[in-house]
Amino acid sequence: MNKKAWFASLGVLAWLGCLGCGVHPGPESAPSADQERARIEALVTRQQAAWNQGDVAGFMEGYWNSPELSFSGSSGTTRGWQAVRDRYQKKYPGKDAMGQLYFSDLEIRPLGPDAALVLGRWELRRASGDLGGVFSLVLRRFPEGWRIIHDHTSLVPG
Amino acid sequence: MNKKAWFASLGVLAWLGCLGCGVHPGPESAPSADQERARIEALVTRQQAAWNQGDVAGFMEGYWNSPELSFSGSSGTTRGWQAVRDRYQKKYPGKDAMGQLYFSDLEIRPLGPDAALVLGRWELRRASGDLGGVFSLVLRRFPEGWRIIHDHTSLVPG
Repeated sequence: MNKKAWFASLGVLAWLGCLGCGVHPGPESAPSADQERARIEALVTRQQAAWNQGDVAGFMEGYWNSPELSFSGSSGTTRGWQAVRDRYQKKYPGKDAMGQLYFSDLEIRPLGPDAALVLGRWELRRASGDLGGVFSLVLRRFPEGWRIIHDHTSLVPG
Repeated sequence: MNKKAWFASLGVLAWLGCLGCGVHPGPESAPSADQERARIEALVTRQQAAWNQGDVAGFMEGYWNSPELSFSGSSGTTRGWQAVRDRYQKKYPGKDAMGQLYFSDLEIRPLGPDAALVLGRWELRRASGDLGGVFSLVLRRFPEGWRIIHDHTSLVPG
């Protein structure tokens, strides 16, 4: 295949991939878009379940394991998977501090075939005091699946 | 036009649209990706300039004029262009409250041909007290140009 034909095929693939974005409501679009949406929802649900078992490693599996991963909040921006993990472990040392996490009002907005924005609310129920707020996640689709590449989380005083 | 030709044209269009995403580093692609980046940077710079002239309407031009626009922070999530504008006008009523806005550490991360994530820091210098923090913007490219579709802004206590 020459370069031009290869690029053209990529174009067709990109377009087919974009069928799910709602601009071209073809018969093929619904299952694929729904599938990606379900995968993203499953990732967030797995994170919640891991957290509620005190499993920070499992929780971190939802994040892109890269020095480019970023996490923003009222402490500024933390960069890199390891630093994000360290931040969680410092802020929530052990099962009692972690409490029980509940996500709600999940809103998944496709940003093309390989990216999505997820908004939602979080709530942490703990003996030491409940917390809650909102989050914005930006995800990218990698060969190994969807991963959070940026997380911006805010505490919303109750 | 038969179905095959139609699909092929769409494919070519999608590919042309995708030139900016950096996946195809051909001689045509680099300037286009740089151009999109420059356009996004110009949008943010225009917002800063409008703010510093007390021009909320000009500042709001960077946002997607849609009921789906969203803004998250320590008050939760505000939805809709009008509600986001009302929030700014309530929170910063007049030039003194608006002060002088400075953006820094801008980081533009493409999320495909038509979407981008922009991280940065903001600082507001005012007689009544300085403020500052971090923001995460998700932008989409529309026929009329790039627009912010989601803004998550945090105050970072100094």
